[in-house]
Amino acid sequence: MTDSKPTDESEATDGDSKQTDEAGEPDSLTHVEDGDAQMVDIGEKGDSRRRAVARGRLGLGSSTVGAIRADSIGKGDVLATARVGAIRAVKHTWESIPMCHQIPVTNVETEFDLDETGVTLAVTVETVGKTGCEMEALEGVTTGLNVVWDMVKAAEKVDGAYPDTHIGDVRVVEKTVER
Amino acid sequence: MTDSKPTDESEATDGDSKQTDEAGEPDSLTHVEDGDAQMVDIGEKGDSRRRAVARGRLGLGSSTVGAIRADSIGKGDVLATARVGAIRAVKHTWESIPMCHQIPVTNVETEFDLDETGVTLAVTVETVGKTGCEMEALEGVTTGLNVVWDMVKAAEKVDGAYPDTHIGDVRVVEKTVER
Amino acid sequence: MTDSKPTDESEATDGDSKQTDEAGEPDSLTHVEDGDAQMVDIGEKGDSRRRAVARGRLGLGSSTVGAIRADSIGKGDVLATARVGAIRAVKHTWESIPMCHQIPVTNVETEFDLDETGVTLAVTVETVGKTGCEMEALEGVTTGLNVVWDMVKAAEKVDGAYPDTHIGDVRVVEKTVER
Amino acid sequence: MTDSKPTDESEATDGDSKQTDEAGEPDSLTHVEDGDAQMVDIGEKGDSRRRAVARGRLGLGSSTVGAIRADSIGKGDVLATARVGAIRAVKHTWESIPMCHQIPVTNVETEFDLDETGVTLAVTVETVGKTGCEMEALEGVTTGLNVVWDMVKAAEKVDGAYPDTHIGDVRVVEKTVER
Amino acid sequence: MTDSKPTDESEATDGDSKQTDEAGEPDSLTHVEDGDAQMVDIGEKGDSRRRAVARGRLGLGSSTVGAIRADSIGKGDVLATARVGAIRAVKHTWESIPMCHQIPVTNVETEFDLDETGVTLAVTVETVGKTGCEMEALEGVTTGLNVVWDMVKAAEKVDGAYPDTHIGDVRVVEKTVER
Amino acid sequence: MTDSKPTDESEATDGDSKQTDEAGEPDSLTHVEDGDAQMVDIGEKGDSRRRAVARGRLGLGSSTVGAIRADSIGKGDVLATARVGAIRAVKHTWESIPMCHQIPVTNVETEFDLDETGVTLAVTVETVGKTGCEMEALEGVTTGLNVVWDMVKAAEKVDGAYPDTHIGDVRVVEKTVER
Repeated sequence: MTDSKPTDESEATDGDSKQTDEAGEPDSLTHVEDGDAQMVDIGEKGDSRRRAVARGRLGLGSSTVGAIRADSIGKGDVLATARVGAIRAVKHTWESIPMCHQIPVTNVETEFDLDETGVTLAVTVETVGKTGCEMEALEGVTTGLNVVWDMVKAAEKVDGAYPDTHIGDVRVVEKTVER
Repeated sequence: MTDSKPTDESEATDGDSKQTDEAGEPDSLTHVEDGDAQMVDIGEKGDSRRRAVARGRLGLGSSTVGAIRADSIGKGDVLATARVGAIRAVKHTWESIPMCHQIPVTNVETEFDLDETGVTLAVTVETVGKTGCEMEALEGVTTGLNVVWDMVKAAEKVDGAYPDTHIGDVRVVEKTVER
Repeated sequence: MTDSKPTDESEATDGDSKQTDEAGEPDSLTHVEDGDAQMVDIGEKGDSRRRAVARGRLGLGSSTVGAIRADSIGKGDVLATARVGAIRAVKHTWESIPMCHQIPVTNVETEFDLDETGVTLAVTVETVGKTGCEMEALEGVTTGLNVVWDMVKAAEKVDGAYPDTHIGDVRVVEKTVER
Repeated sequence: MTDSKPTDESEATDGDSKQTDEAGEPDSLTHVEDGDAQMVDIGEKGDSRRRAVARGRLGLGSSTVGAIRADSIGKGDVLATARVGAIRAVKHTWESIPMCHQIPVTNVETEFDLDETGVTLAVTVETVGKTGCEMEALEGVTTGLNVVWDMVKAAEKVDGAYPDTHIGDVRVVEKTVER
Repeated sequence: MTDSKPTDESEATDGDSKQTDEAGEPDSLTHVEDGDAQMVDIGEKGDSRRRAVARGRLGLGSSTVGAIRADSIGKGDVLATARVGAIRAVKHTWESIPMCHQIPVTNVETEFDLDETGVTLAVTVETVGKTGCEMEALEGVTTGLNVVWDMVKAAEKVDGAYPDTHIGDVRVVEKTVER
Repeated sequence: MTDSKPTDESEATDGDSKQTDEAGEPDSLTHVEDGDAQMVDIGEKGDSRRRAVARGRLGLGSSTVGAIRADSIGKGDVLATARVGAIRAVKHTWESIPMCHQIPVTNVETEFDLDETGVTLAVTVETVGKTGCEMEALEGVTTGLNVVWDMVKAAEKVDGAYPDTHIGDVRVVEKTVER
């Protein structure tokens, strides 16, 4: 995908005029027209290859990281389950995000990195369609990390609470469209 | 709910012996038995009133916050849509998180706070059931914030990317069970 | 179910004070608190046997009614498919109606009546739970009738449109709770 | 979309011969072949821009209309929630209507009109695909109106019943395909 | 669960009279009343602890079994993914099987056995509810085996077909209810 | 569809090199890369007309077959319900099988054959897309047969168990792609 590059595809806006609205006006919102939430009309748009990568991090106690690592050396079911959960979340984004269209997802890649203080998850989504897929990547990251949290609850709980566990730094790190 | 208090309910562990496992052993993982991911057996547990509150934050450009605020003064569809998305995510957690049980959610409350640099969302979930509801609260927060992101994409995008937008500080801030 | 009777169970209100609000105030709305849509907290409510019946009608051309009747004398797949669709809609109401709780549906009955000018569908829903089931019955009726419409599209279409086909008179005709 | 017009696209029939069947024969039914319900084979059809508009009405007490209007002047969550519910229903029609195909919905528009005695909802659906989208529009209307009903239950209930509330006049008011 | 035993719980029949119907009469069918499919009314039934185990087998080429085993010695994602798929299928049985009720599943156990010519999957489901869970166990087995098939397609395909791959011997091997 | 023929389309492999891997290596698995389960990237593939047929059999007692036959002579709701269930399962395969893509299903055909000892179900699925549809056909067969099982539970149960009922011989009997 060498000839793709980050562009302002504006796939979910009503055109460039939006960019010149005064800051703070409701009209600069993506799915709001005359104050009402609406889906964006993508009927006039052609199909393009699009790609988005989101990344986020689950901060954990170091002994929990050790438990995940020991498991991943063995059967690996913690990360395997989170991987399935992240892929499912990507495919269900059109249901989870009310104004999203259902797009044909052609590829999903998940990558988990363990370090001393947590797990970083990067989710790549590709589509050949009429609108971008960054919401899909974001849903994959946040739900994927929630699945890891669910799998390590016993290890992280202190007096019935989770004083240290937290999700952070969830960002879209790449977004491209081939013209 | 005056007589409730944070406790180590261990609702998703196999008992107290788990607490004495050496840190880092796979057996301290919640849904892993002999290396295989499994649901936790909750058949012997009684029904308790349980409550969990999770909170998280979506960092945004200040002009975007202004747009949400202007909208919320008007029709309010950005936050209304996110509210519906957060509640839907709570109700669908048993599908999103592979090892979660389906529990009878009796109450969901969502609270959005706007400040100069973003939106904070707190989601409260209550159930009368056999296992806790913090995963429900977490899914409500992360998906609810993703819905806000989706609604403000046009305002946040710079050269086709989201340099500043990010979700962070997602935590379980309260978890109680009435005995 | 001889000792049940129609009552003002107010299962989805915040109490009797609501009834005394001045008409027209937002506070008289079911799921709106301080202007925000919310689910109703049912955690304090006990389980009751509840029952609701909704009914509606699909107006059709008389030749279409004949086709359904001929089919129902034969294999009966039109009404059988609509019956499955109505039951499915009942079971999925907690997803279709954003502020509904998921309740344990214990019984669904569907009854189709054909006359010269259309089909009448009555859907009965019963639950043993903390809130009523009239929305479930309504979703069963409207979606069940839409399924019939879908099955008779070829017979009803005139010049690519449906000049006569219409759904009407959708009402809750019974709503009871056993105390 | 100036060059589109209502046509007999017959997208869900097996061809023109169907139109000449005697009225009342099961073969004039859309999804029934040899008495068995089946999906319609659309594999040979090309992609066309298609559009359907359905409309329906929820009859309400006048004080309830006032409550919705007061809310819509304020936060607007009643109609905002119904809007999200209508869009969701459109996107889920392939699940709700058993014989429907999943089609790529490119646009959904919802329009609520309040008058003294109720709410009228019009839902427009557009697709670029192999079959029409009137069932999507119908599901959007009926479920959208059910959501409004759910939000005004407290205001409409009299002695635990809904003597006046009713859905009616649900019709497909426009159906076009661009050739 | 020492005091449980296989019993004729008849949880999905209309009572004992059904057992004395002449074989072959439609009335001996579970969900059919007067020729119409219906859900069974379980409103009068109490909650019991119920358990069902289903088992089935996917026949495979021996080299494919070797590939699964090599994977299971390593990361184990084939069986981990199938395990998640089986659990998901159990939880979604109320959607997959049109006349099933949604029951509170309290436990799911999955057990995969590899031998020279295939994979055997046993799925145990437990519930505390008003009706049995053998359909849940069956859906877990058949979908779980389909997931394995999906993961080994490349290894099993010969000239674009699957001459040897097959699912068989799917049975309910245990069904108990505690009185 | 005269010019289609069975081919090794390898739609779900990473290319021909996979075919030369030694049997038993994890790399010959379809969705496993470096030990991690992943979806297959189909973004570079063109749209082709694809077709798959799967078949399977539910073994039943002869009196049960008689009951189904009697019902199918009458209203036919047993097979009609199973037909709807099979079609639904086909459409939901992208959810049931974790690594499957969502593909545009253009046609589903179901065929039930009753003989003295059981029911055979064949499900044909057609798509115009980037990957095959045999998993869709398999899910249609196994869930369709499970629906029949659910409908005849009362007739098949002996002392609370199903000694004779079993699903077997589930195979992909045709798989073609038009180039």
